[in-house]
Amino acid sequence: VGGELAAAALDSPLAARSAPLLQRLERSMSSVTIPPPACMLRPLEAPLRYLFGPGPSNVPPRVLAAGGRPIIGHLHPEMYEIMNDIKKGIQYAFQTENNMTISMSGSGHAAMECAVFNTVEPGESVLVAINGIWGERVAEIAERMGANVHRMVKTPGGYFTNKEIEQAMQKHKPVLFFLTHGESSAGLCHPIDGIGDICRKHDCLFLVDTVASLGAAPIFMDKQNIDILYTGSQKALNAPPGTAPISFNDRACHKMFNRKTKPVSYLFDMTHLSNYWGCDGKPARAYHHTGPVSGFFALRESLAILAERGLEESWRKHKEVAAYLYRGLEDLGIKLFIPERDLRLPSVTTIAIPKGYDWREMLAYIMKHHQMEMTGGLGPSIGMVMRIGLMGYNCEKSNADMALHALADALKNCRKSKA
Amino acid sequence: VGGELAAAALDSPLAARSAPLLQRLERSMSSVTIPPPACMLRPLEAPLRYLFGPGPSNVPPRVLAAGGRPIIGHLHPEMYEIMNDIKKGIQYAFQTENNMTISMSGSGHAAMECAVFNTVEPGESVLVAINGIWGERVAEIAERMGANVHRMVKTPGGYFTNKEIEQAMQKHKPVLFFLTHGESSAGLCHPIDGIGDICRKHDCLFLVDTVASLGAAPIFMDKQNIDILYTGSQKALNAPPGTAPISFNDRACHKMFNRKTKPVSYLFDMTHLSNYWGCDGKPARAYHHTGPVSGFFALRESLAILAERGLEESWRKHKEVAAYLYRGLEDLGIKLFIPERDLRLPSVTTIAIPKGYDWREMLAYIMKHHQMEMTGGLGPSIGMVMRIGLMGYNCEKSNADMALHALADALKNCRKSKA
Repeated sequence: VGGELAAAALDSPLAARSAPLLQRLERSMSSVTIPPPACMLRPLEAPLRYLFGPGPSNVPPRVLAAGGRPIIGHLHPEMYEIMNDIKKGIQYAFQTENNMTISMSGSGHAAMECAVFNTVEPGESVLVAINGIWGERVAEIAERMGANVHRMVKTPGGYFTNKEIEQAMQKHKPVLFFLTHGESSAGLCHPIDGIGDICRKHDCLFLVDTVASLGAAPIFMDKQNIDILYTGSQKALNAPPGTAPISFNDRACHKMFNRKTKPVSYLFDMTHLSNYWGCDGKPARAYHHTGPVSGFFALRESLAILAERGLEESWRKHKEVAAYLYRGLEDLGIKLFIPERDLRLPSVTTIAIPKGYDWREMLAYIMKHHQMEMTGGLGPSIGMVMRIGLMGYNCEKSNADMALHALADALKNCRKSKA
Repeated sequence: VGGELAAAALDSPLAARSAPLLQRLERSMSSVTIPPPACMLRPLEAPLRYLFGPGPSNVPPRVLAAGGRPIIGHLHPEMYEIMNDIKKGIQYAFQTENNMTISMSGSGHAAMECAVFNTVEPGESVLVAINGIWGERVAEIAERMGANVHRMVKTPGGYFTNKEIEQAMQKHKPVLFFLTHGESSAGLCHPIDGIGDICRKHDCLFLVDTVASLGAAPIFMDKQNIDILYTGSQKALNAPPGTAPISFNDRACHKMFNRKTKPVSYLFDMTHLSNYWGCDGKPARAYHHTGPVSGFFALRESLAILAERGLEESWRKHKEVAAYLYRGLEDLGIKLFIPERDLRLPSVTTIAIPKGYDWREMLAYIMKHHQMEMTGGLGPSIGMVMRIGLMGYNCEKSNADMALHALADALKNCRKSKA
């Protein structure tokens, strides 16, 4: 082969140079000139911290242990079994019998893009309900792939009546309607009942984001006629971020598997992902991409914990701890951002920024003195709210007490002078 | 709020139904009808297995432990420090000083799509060298986003001379040329020298896939004038799959940040990812997506191991163990698929399927009796080769001995009758 390679080199522009120069160049190319970085001699440092923001949430030891197990191949039969278990665990969590139920190898945004990329073709109409950041994101995603996007907008904390939704649907004739169930940027849990029926009446797919609400507030994919539902791993499910369950019903499958054009992403193409997850009825699963094996181990464990505990108990507990937190906040004189108790998202509580305080200063104080994350708003709710998340593993009254104690401490020590 | 919700319900098509029916419906919606899956009562089962295929590779205990640590928030200052360390670790591994160096929150395919989506606009010309599966994938990805794709094709194991590449470049005037450094489906390590110069001469960006080769075979991003380079976490780096380092030089940044159109993916848009990774010079990092915190912990640890060991030592070791494996294979009468020793990929060795044997049967035998993964071909090399990967942590003569022992056993027990 030496001869062939040399011939190749002679064909290149380098051939114009002298042979000794070429040799010197090859020598210089074979030596490392960028040294190993000194920072890598330090061990990994990550403090223990109370993750009482909107997620990621603290990961229970059982789930951490699952994620830290020695891996197997992404195409081994045992991995397929684990993926089959995950599928069943998602079906339970979503309350669906949909065969087309998988986990994305990515965060909630991967699920968002997967849903839009697969069910919408360029030029088609998409209706997006925006009452916080997530609708904004979906609108942007749909516009990038060439959809004709129509926005219904409310300020953070607002919600849409079924009548408003139906009127917008009549006007824009969308193939897809997006709504966020758990609007974590505003702390709102949006009513869902009846909307799926409106979508069917108008031949539109109903896409719902439950990243922040799944496991914390009831959702019934099949009974509520939701056509596409997704969530994230790192909220009430308490797995590390990096996987995102998603499910498509028959209506959604019919639309996405009868397209004229290919979805713009190969990685998120459900034709391939459905095969990888054994949902397409074919006897063999072909290599598509390498799934996050450790992430799937952790996701399976988190779904197992939810199945053992039961959805009803998980919903009850989130409601109970949230109510306990509301009382404590009111005792501190803090105003809840969502006045209607039934519309509050049980996993993420939003509070109005206390008058006379700088929210950034309060959050920094709580992080510094209590090793505790709470956060400000996100997207349109920045500067409007502070957010306290108690989800899944973190959803305990004792944690609510700690959060209230930290807030009380910040209220005492962060008041701005009136200068 | 009860009144408002009731009003919303009355606006919906359900309002046509009787109030008692509506109440019954609400009751039924609030009950779980899909029971928890029985499979979830079983604990997670994943056998210990020798991952001697083309990846994922076995993950060393240090990296598993890092990935199993309690997580912190994806936007905490300590996480930014970890991401900064990862950036420096990638710069070392890639031998580059590029500021625009990050990890994708996804597998190698996410890096592939990120590279193409950001540097190419619809209608632009892309030249793809295909001598195995990876070029096929990039061609498909580029076609989906609307590029004008030109393919140079060789059968698996073939490689391209610099003259062939330059001629195709003159003909098709691409804005991007793709080449796989470590073609794991064929076991070929493609020569790189001189190609970057040709690309500069023709005002084309040079994109190189080193998923299977990084850390195992020398690559010098800056000296070899590679404009965009990416790899995966689960090969010689020995982290679990799910993260993918990628780097862009100034030429690539100039092209991708002076586009007329937005990249089709919001999730993979480098405008946002560069901010998330602190590469855009802005004082604050905004929320874009939630990165895989545990995956980044593991990736940092794997890059730290590489930095401690040193690239030269890692390259030397892979070459040494591969040579040891070649001798053993030849002693068994097995024919190496790539005849030219210098073109063999040190991390993944391809062998011709022994005459008189069914490769599927041999692989199943080795898996069953030795708990060891070896694999067949992939894409165009299916039925042509069997593949043995000894990479990073697995790259030891003792492992080569075990692989050879398993192969000898399979050769003894899997011979087909001549009937």
